[in-house]
Amino acid sequence: MTQTRERVEAWLGAFESALRDRDGERAARLFAVDSFWRDLVAFTWNITTVEGRAGVAALLADRLEDVDPSGFALTEEPSEADGVTEAWLRFETRVGRGTAHLRLRGGEAWTLLTTLRELKGFEEARPQGVEHELRKGRRSWQEEREREQATLGRVEQPYVVVIGGGQGGIALGARLRRLGVPALVLDRHDRPGDQWRKRYKSLCLHDPVWYDHLPYLPFPANWPVFAPKDKIGDWLEMYTRVMEVPYWSRAEVRSASFDADSGTWRVVVQHDGESVELRPAHLVFATGMSGKPNRPALPGQDVFRGEQHHSSEHPGPEAYRGKRVVVVGSNNSAFDICGALWEHDADVTMVQRSSTHIVKSASLMDIGLGDLYSERAVANGVTTDRADMIFASLPYRIMHEFQIPLYERMAERDADFYARLEKAGFRHDWGDDGSGLFMKYLRRGSGYYIDVGAADLVADGRIKLAQGQVDRLTEDAVVLDDGTTLPADLVVYATGYGSMNGWVADIVDRATADRVGKVWGLGSDTTKDPGPWEGEQRNMWKPTQQENLWFHGGNLHQSRHYSLYLALQLKARYEGIPTPVYRLQEVHHTS
Amino acid sequence: MTQTRERVEAWLGAFESALRDRDGERAARLFAVDSFWRDLVAFTWNITTVEGRAGVAALLADRLEDVDPSGFALTEEPSEADGVTEAWLRFETRVGRGTAHLRLRGGEAWTLLTTLRELKGFEEARPQGVEHELRKGRRSWQEEREREQATLGRVEQPYVVVIGGGQGGIALGARLRRLGVPALVLDRHDRPGDQWRKRYKSLCLHDPVWYDHLPYLPFPANWPVFAPKDKIGDWLEMYTRVMEVPYWSRAEVRSASFDADSGTWRVVVQHDGESVELRPAHLVFATGMSGKPNRPALPGQDVFRGEQHHSSEHPGPEAYRGKRVVVVGSNNSAFDICGALWEHDADVTMVQRSSTHIVKSASLMDIGLGDLYSERAVANGVTTDRADMIFASLPYRIMHEFQIPLYERMAERDADFYARLEKAGFRHDWGDDGSGLFMKYLRRGSGYYIDVGAADLVADGRIKLAQGQVDRLTEDAVVLDDGTTLPADLVVYATGYGSMNGWVADIVDRATADRVGKVWGLGSDTTKDPGPWEGEQRNMWKPTQQENLWFHGGNLHQSRHYSLYLALQLKARYEGIPTPVYRLQEVHHTS
Repeated sequence: MTQTRERVEAWLGAFESALRDRDGERAARLFAVDSFWRDLVAFTWNITTVEGRAGVAALLADRLEDVDPSGFALTEEPSEADGVTEAWLRFETRVGRGTAHLRLRGGEAWTLLTTLRELKGFEEARPQGVEHELRKGRRSWQEEREREQATLGRVEQPYVVVIGGGQGGIALGARLRRLGVPALVLDRHDRPGDQWRKRYKSLCLHDPVWYDHLPYLPFPANWPVFAPKDKIGDWLEMYTRVMEVPYWSRAEVRSASFDADSGTWRVVVQHDGESVELRPAHLVFATGMSGKPNRPALPGQDVFRGEQHHSSEHPGPEAYRGKRVVVVGSNNSAFDICGALWEHDADVTMVQRSSTHIVKSASLMDIGLGDLYSERAVANGVTTDRADMIFASLPYRIMHEFQIPLYERMAERDADFYARLEKAGFRHDWGDDGSGLFMKYLRRGSGYYIDVGAADLVADGRIKLAQGQVDRLTEDAVVLDDGTTLPADLVVYATGYGSMNGWVADIVDRATADRVGKVWGLGSDTTKDPGPWEGEQRNMWKPTQQENLWFHGGNLHQSRHYSLYLALQLKARYEGIPTPVYRLQEVHHTS
Repeated sequence: MTQTRERVEAWLGAFESALRDRDGERAARLFAVDSFWRDLVAFTWNITTVEGRAGVAALLADRLEDVDPSGFALTEEPSEADGVTEAWLRFETRVGRGTAHLRLRGGEAWTLLTTLRELKGFEEARPQGVEHELRKGRRSWQEEREREQATLGRVEQPYVVVIGGGQGGIALGARLRRLGVPALVLDRHDRPGDQWRKRYKSLCLHDPVWYDHLPYLPFPANWPVFAPKDKIGDWLEMYTRVMEVPYWSRAEVRSASFDADSGTWRVVVQHDGESVELRPAHLVFATGMSGKPNRPALPGQDVFRGEQHHSSEHPGPEAYRGKRVVVVGSNNSAFDICGALWEHDADVTMVQRSSTHIVKSASLMDIGLGDLYSERAVANGVTTDRADMIFASLPYRIMHEFQIPLYERMAERDADFYARLEKAGFRHDWGDDGSGLFMKYLRRGSGYYIDVGAADLVADGRIKLAQGQVDRLTEDAVVLDDGTTLPADLVVYATGYGSMNGWVADIVDRATADRVGKVWGLGSDTTKDPGPWEGEQRNMWKPTQQENLWFHGGNLHQSRHYSLYLALQLKARYEGIPTPVYRLQEVHHTS
């Protein structure tokens, strides 16, 4: 046995012995003073990170007896680098099986990630597909599917209703299907994938294929690194079909209210022109982590004679050849839209209202994601699931410390690029603490552009740049607060999105939205992510202050990975497994 | 280095040295007296097996200089069992890279499989999906797709036309797409997958999921072991879309003729009501290895007042509740159709005309396929590609020797079952030489049933059994040659299919069909597979006696695996790489 393995085995032995003796204090002393235990559902029926020995002890005091953890064992040879020992583990609880990732420093646990992977008695198994015994009245698969489609939501009620059938809703729907939880995904578009198809023409994923896999069915080897929106649309449509996700297209949710007595929601849906009332136990908002479009109210919008729309409604550049377009905003959508308009010979001006963080796509792929999600990572044995676990194992509290050096390397590599941008008057930042794009995404979900070519157009003036706030619109122009007048035939508001609980206000009510509070963000006390520190993303994939109300979504990576933990939480409730939530999050902000 | 490895390295060293010296005789002496070298395109631009030292020497005398093989090297540690050393290799040729599988016995090569995997300069690479430089006039993926759909087959001619868009045509279409060969798949149905959807209701795959993967995109982990036909239909439809296979539905080929001067085909297609003429260089028949339905001509068919149809047209059992049905035939389709009719309360009689081989599905899965295609195989590291290679490495000449003991085990395991069948009067066989189902499939493509439950219905009389040939039909009955009269409202002819060159006769002409000859079979001189010995399946996936005419198909395993070699043969021709064919097969039978 190697020394590294001995060290891990010794720690595990001591840890498990303390757990067996129900001695949470002793177990906590195996953690470093500065340490983090992140649990995804396995110990806490929550997504939560506790810090330090006191945090560990408190968690165990509350949960140890009920969870009854056991069987911690290495699943592969542990490794050691820079004084940190890294180990991959499996373990069991009373009701499930999990995997874990452990980092030891000086013989003490520095980080521990525990994740629930399956519930005992409800393991995901490959179905046989056909009974090999003939009997009268046996139904074919197709007949069974047709029966289900005719009855679900009408004769039989789904246990879970998912509002929103983009990648998030679909991934969750696939998990619930496989776990045997009756669910129904509702979406307002004509068919799955339209969430992508209906966006502006030049849109491609900014994340690479290795980051974007959906559960169960990875993209094939010939899938493009950065998939075009219509291709993703096709994939989502076929995925929904072959995974047999119960899905209603052309279904708009008009209202929802929770009946605490019966423990069910009353969800009113306009489906294909017909009003249907659904009575699920659980309601999941998968309406897009970006939430509702922020549409700025500006003086003069009523007198402006041209066209104006939010970036989410922008149809693409074709109709604007030769037109003067003012795009308000300077993040991803703004750059994408400006770039496509320029390609189609529009006269484009970008209005930068606040500073933006830009990284070149190639640098982000190589330095930011390359170790986890890339051809290189795959060649090194870092499968998608392993990458997801490694990423999840870094506590949010210290994640920026790992991110800062990566962005310092990008700054160095692309120094010329940034110099050119600055010379063009573009205000650029690296995040409040220099931690770059990914922390901006996790904290506020905005404030950046992954450059796929449009930044150069700004740098050399092919896309014009204006600085400042919009003061008002006139009949034919946008006027900034410094008096600059930008003649316009079209104004695009690339002004971002609000918190996802805005959808709750619309569909349930304002009181529920406020009780649930702001969705997304870590409480990092940086721009647009006010404190106090939360330790996890607010309200995402875990119980909220509204019973039986959940939020799901994020990028493709998050939709894939966290859909598992949300699905298992729902499955446990469906099967009547007790799910006492440890440290239900408090709410500090309403939006 | 292990002794096993030393032995392989020594053999490889001597082999490569002989090849380098262009000394085919010396290389041949490294093979055993009884030995087999099977080549899939790499050395021969053909699919061919040579036997013994003379066969090896002749192949090398003809091909060595041109192929210029080199770089034979182990890709993993070789293994040894029962006196046979097994090694996995890679190698190169002048134009490509390949993998190989070698078995040594007593230091001599017993079997060698060489396969071409890619052409140098034309390796399959993941596309970027988007250019990260903006420029005016850039087209989006969707626009590019729409342009292609508007022009292919009209403004631009495909290099390859594939007739038939079932699993075979689709798999080949996906390979050609990825290799950048302009191709067009034609299919007469309304949409991809209808080839399966339109079959009888109870149809499920008889082969298990691990055997059935298509190229590039394996079925997901929740795919049923035996997929129902409609689910396979959905999969094929979505596969066609996401793999961007150029595919015309509602396209019937009316005629095709080869113009030797221009080296192109003139293919007349009725597409969506419009007549289109295509001018591809190559024409691939992927019309189903089963070929055209055999419709027996029987006296009295004109006076019979009930319904009669071939099994391929059977709509399913719903309409026949309470009806008397006579099913002529006793192979897979007959059993499936009889079973579903019985489930729907029809009065069913099966007419057995000749003896049938039956194996229980579970036994076939476990004993017949389990080592290569099963959950167990996957757990043992036998990936689909590895299983395909192992299977391909067994020369057809001796394959029955490996098969016979498997079927002896099945006979023993299911002895009670066979006794009950015999007692019911069912004539059962194990193939001419006891080699069972798979050899029957390869030799004649018929004569068996994989039992998924219906055999029990015959054994206990719930499906009635009659023996003999059909003599004639009357107004309301089927009369057998012994005078037995079977009253019937419906007669189903589960009478199988003819050779695939029947389609060539219909579409091209009889002369071409005869020149190309019988498709399928090994020349084993067993029932329905007349000699002389061919060594490979006649006409499948390799050059035929008609220039630029090819056959593709078979089960899902064959469609997956052999589509690679056919695609590489077409790609080489498309790129102008010389492809001298070694030992173009001779034709001994016209059908």
